[in-house]
Amino acid sequence: MSDRAQQPGPPFAADDAQDRGPRVVALGGGHGLSTLLRGLKDQHCDITAIVTVADDGGSSGVLRRETGILPPGDLRRCIAALADAEPLMTQLFEYRFGHGAGLDGHAFGNLFIAAMAGIMGDFERGVSEVSRVLAVKGRVLPSSLDHLVLCAEVCVPDDQGGRILVKGQSQIAGVHGLVERVYLQPSEPKGYPLAISALLNADLIVLGPGSLYTSIIPNLLVPDILAALCAAEARKVYICNVATQPGETADYTVGDHVRALAEHMGGGACDCVLANGNTDLTLSPTSNSAMVMPTLEGAPAFDGDAWQLVVQDLVDRALPWRHDAAKLASTVLRLCPR
Amino acid sequence: MSDRAQQPGPPFAADDAQDRGPRVVALGGGHGLSTLLRGLKDQHCDITAIVTVADDGGSSGVLRRETGILPPGDLRRCIAALADAEPLMTQLFEYRFGHGAGLDGHAFGNLFIAAMAGIMGDFERGVSEVSRVLAVKGRVLPSSLDHLVLCAEVCVPDDQGGRILVKGQSQIAGVHGLVERVYLQPSEPKGYPLAISALLNADLIVLGPGSLYTSIIPNLLVPDILAALCAAEARKVYICNVATQPGETADYTVGDHVRALAEHMGGGACDCVLANGNTDLTLSPTSNSAMVMPTLEGAPAFDGDAWQLVVQDLVDRALPWRHDAAKLASTVLRLCPR
Repeated sequence: MSDRAQQPGPPFAADDAQDRGPRVVALGGGHGLSTLLRGLKDQHCDITAIVTVADDGGSSGVLRRETGILPPGDLRRCIAALADAEPLMTQLFEYRFGHGAGLDGHAFGNLFIAAMAGIMGDFERGVSEVSRVLAVKGRVLPSSLDHLVLCAEVCVPDDQGGRILVKGQSQIAGVHGLVERVYLQPSEPKGYPLAISALLNADLIVLGPGSLYTSIIPNLLVPDILAALCAAEARKVYICNVATQPGETADYTVGDHVRALAEHMGGGACDCVLANGNTDLTLSPTSNSAMVMPTLEGAPAFDGDAWQLVVQDLVDRALPWRHDAAKLASTVLRLCPR
Repeated sequence: MSDRAQQPGPPFAADDAQDRGPRVVALGGGHGLSTLLRGLKDQHCDITAIVTVADDGGSSGVLRRETGILPPGDLRRCIAALADAEPLMTQLFEYRFGHGAGLDGHAFGNLFIAAMAGIMGDFERGVSEVSRVLAVKGRVLPSSLDHLVLCAEVCVPDDQGGRILVKGQSQIAGVHGLVERVYLQPSEPKGYPLAISALLNADLIVLGPGSLYTSIIPNLLVPDILAALCAAEARKVYICNVATQPGETADYTVGDHVRALAEHMGGGACDCVLANGNTDLTLSPTSNSAMVMPTLEGAPAFDGDAWQLVVQDLVDRALPWRHDAAKLASTVLRLCPR
């Protein structure tokens, strides 16, 4: 009869007490954020990803409400990136049942979210609990449980009206113009408490990587989230994309990204930007994309403080419009104060 | 720039190397096994549950092949019992989509297994991978990947023919008679390699708790599993049920359970039985069930060695036909040599 068995230790309490490493909170979306998460998963840190579950307006939004269709891939991608069995989880989420089973056309990931939404009472609450039942390292949280639609004011040529309003996250990049401002409807959504407390307890908060106007800024348009970001004692770093995105950030330098970010979040929320310095790689001319130049020109200084620019080789040589997961994650953790 | 970030530790390798506690392998099924797993989950140990995924023959078996319907609850119950978020996982598995979604009548747990089966190529292989994508402590493995049907020879009154053959796990308990022998079709299924290696690497192997003829013995009818059990250096303990089961073990003492087990597995596989000693509790007269008396009378001695009987208060006072999860798990771990 061993002492251990007589006085069994509570392993979960022990797990909770053990050092999980620095608490890193990442706000963003898209392939960029999932690349960062994939890299962080292999490092000693405690990961929380915060994504906007913004509605796509119109019929796809209605469809989502009724069937639990996921917003454009962000959540699925983040969860899959954090999964212990990553290729398998991705396969599972993308799996579609064959004909005859009455399940045609539904990706399993959507059925999964739909079931969680059914149990928890609504879609957003279902999403917020997903990482509790799946074998993932870390959590993926929505920034708000409210039903949100992302809208944008886009400058277009004068013969098309000069300026148009676009509704729906996936619609914005499809308009060929310059995004001037994005906003949420309703405009004052309530922040999700778990996301707020994650920010307030973080050692390091990173904004991005991800689409500037459709993934990163939408999180900051939730007032409680922005307030928590400003109040948090964590080091805060904006991770600029490696390449420009047509329809969103065409021709943008790092400074242009920072300016747009600052215009949407005001001063004091973040004043450090991590950018890729290896810009000699060639992108395909058909991609309508270019390497983002690591200059702060065009970026405003808030409260008298200039932005700090950290430049590192962060690029994936095989896919030079993307970050390299391992390079990015190790660089990010080196910026962490803890 | 910290040392940690410069030389990031591989957390998964570290997790693998860390002491996960004694390796406990449990073979069985039903509510009994899930009670044990629920108790072990809160202890410091590395859990593997091995269950028989035996087909129910006839139309329900066909249905299972086509739609991924789970065999009677065993797998779902084991996975839910090991889940970090246990009530939520159970709710998720039992969740059924409402009308109009084309998903009527399918419990989500079945859709989940069906999707895994679709990805992995067949039902059994899908089952074997389930615990990789869900947040569960430990693993649930099938004893064989072959398509199996459990059959029984049952003694019935002479006016009903004296002896009948019953096919299908869920049919056996429904026949009012004495189970004489159970067997598998096909009779020589191949053992699942991961289950075999779990047995060979175990510190402690427990048979049960669970239905004697329909949950525990079916695992031992897989020749590779029985051979691994015999060859394993682990301590091996049979956990006898707290109460008799009508149609399976009516009027059985602990010795009767041991005799039936020994008749199906031969000598040398196991020679220790853990039984409940608190038999003063009253079962409902309508349950057709009685407390199992902790006597070895009727049990054979194999190879000249008598069975060792360990008697402890293991019962759940609120549900006296069941084990108490915490009492059972701590007692089981005290029997572990490591």
